[in-house]
Amino acid sequence: MSTARYLEDSRQKVDRALTDLLPRETVHPARLLSAMRYSLFAGGKRIRPILVLAAAEASGGKVEEALSPACAVELVHTYSLIHDDLPAMDDDDFRRGRATCHKSFDEGTAILAGDALLTLAFEVLAAGGEGIGDNIRLQMVRELALAAGWRGMVGGQQVDMDSEGSKPELPVLEYIHTHKTGALIRCSVLLGGLCANADEATLKALGNYGEKVGLAFQVIDDILDVTATTEEMGKDQGSDAEKGKVTYPGLFGLEGARERAIKLVEDAKSVISGMDSTGRLAQIADFVLLRRL
Amino acid sequence: MSTARYLEDSRQKVDRALTDLLPRETVHPARLLSAMRYSLFAGGKRIRPILVLAAAEASGGKVEEALSPACAVELVHTYSLIHDDLPAMDDDDFRRGRATCHKSFDEGTAILAGDALLTLAFEVLAAGGEGIGDNIRLQMVRELALAAGWRGMVGGQQVDMDSEGSKPELPVLEYIHTHKTGALIRCSVLLGGLCANADEATLKALGNYGEKVGLAFQVIDDILDVTATTEEMGKDQGSDAEKGKVTYPGLFGLEGARERAIKLVEDAKSVISGMDSTGRLAQIADFVLLRRL
Repeated sequence: MSTARYLEDSRQKVDRALTDLLPRETVHPARLLSAMRYSLFAGGKRIRPILVLAAAEASGGKVEEALSPACAVELVHTYSLIHDDLPAMDDDDFRRGRATCHKSFDEGTAILAGDALLTLAFEVLAAGGEGIGDNIRLQMVRELALAAGWRGMVGGQQVDMDSEGSKPELPVLEYIHTHKTGALIRCSVLLGGLCANADEATLKALGNYGEKVGLAFQVIDDILDVTATTEEMGKDQGSDAEKGKVTYPGLFGLEGARERAIKLVEDAKSVISGMDSTGRLAQIADFVLLRRL
Repeated sequence: MSTARYLEDSRQKVDRALTDLLPRETVHPARLLSAMRYSLFAGGKRIRPILVLAAAEASGGKVEEALSPACAVELVHTYSLIHDDLPAMDDDDFRRGRATCHKSFDEGTAILAGDALLTLAFEVLAAGGEGIGDNIRLQMVRELALAAGWRGMVGGQQVDMDSEGSKPELPVLEYIHTHKTGALIRCSVLLGGLCANADEATLKALGNYGEKVGLAFQVIDDILDVTATTEEMGKDQGSDAEKGKVTYPGLFGLEGARERAIKLVEDAKSVISGMDSTGRLAQIADFVLLRRL
């Protein structure tokens, strides 16, 4: 199966599982559920949940048993986008070419929709699929909470806000990227391994791969923010630079940032070369890189 | 031990456990942790966590083993206050006589502090104390997610927002109160029973008690909003009415609302009369009522 076909098939599996999580018809709170659905089905590429599925398969697990953690990470990712887009944070009106949640609904509803998606992630993880042991499910709850909370993604977003307009420094930039984007991507790969009962050595390799892919992802995002057109990105071009944000191209130039992204993906592939039986993890790393360099 | 002494001792136990959850000195994300601490230690009465401890003791469990779920519900409660106070929601500048989180810090930080507290609640619950089985801990994660998410508290807050300025109707009011306030209070009592390995009948009685106390709590809050001075409440008096919110006194008058609160507390005490060996659950129900009627 080609990489493109694999990604598309996996995306559809994830979309079906996500669709089952939210009821279609509810009297209360109908507006909240509409807002949750609006953002959850906004055309995301589902890279994080696909990483969960791929890591589970690479570790000898079944895709079906990895669907709950896959949904959980996508719910957390979607909540983070909704809150990041708010006027009090990045103040973005468009995301993936559509009005952001608070523009399409209202700010209060967007805040609550994010809150509800985050909470649902833990519900889904704790409910889990059949075949996953209670101790593994608890470990997944802990890993997701660590990756999403103040030690992870939310911490990264805070420091990103705090550093706006200040002189860019590499340690701050690396803190932001490993936390804001990297932590959840690393967690996705780990959850895949965990739900497949991977051993310590495999989990360590997966975590290592996830860190590198996560960082590459963010470097490429920074590059795209400079080079891509508004139409391609679905949001205003160069908006990071306008906001005085610390970025990789800002620190190393476009060439330097590209070199770094290529190196990170090569390293990520090398880390899992011995265990990536399906070859999918390497393909996803390449896909991240080739989104547009 | 008198009720007052019991409540104060329990509050101190909860405060010590909460203090241990957040590090004092951290470089990143220092501002986020400050905001989390600011709201977490804003002088709350800790009713919800004390309900966890009391329900655990009433079910034959140990207070020490109930501290993790007690902290988890207080973290969720604090996050909900921060987000509810935001300009896009209730737009309150003061809470318990102090500037609200977004006033003392900024809106972006307040949103993230709420997000981080919610996430930390699940981390704490999944990490759990010693002596609680994995299946019980998972059940607690699920109960908290259900009570806090779109089926519970967040759903209630959404419908509360949606109904502002519209003609008050009893079914809507009851939906709002059982979800916005009631769900987390009921969950607190349930988590106490769960971590003490309470049997089905006990859990059912606890859930029933929690529902009634939760509803009484909200009816009294509505009454206080009309009758208490700004100084006593620490926020603007009559602010619910000004916002055109549906309230119990608005629907039934002050007398009718008082009658309802008294009846709910009597019913709550009667439901647990057979199992409340320490008598603390009945005392807490009375305390809720006597806050000021």
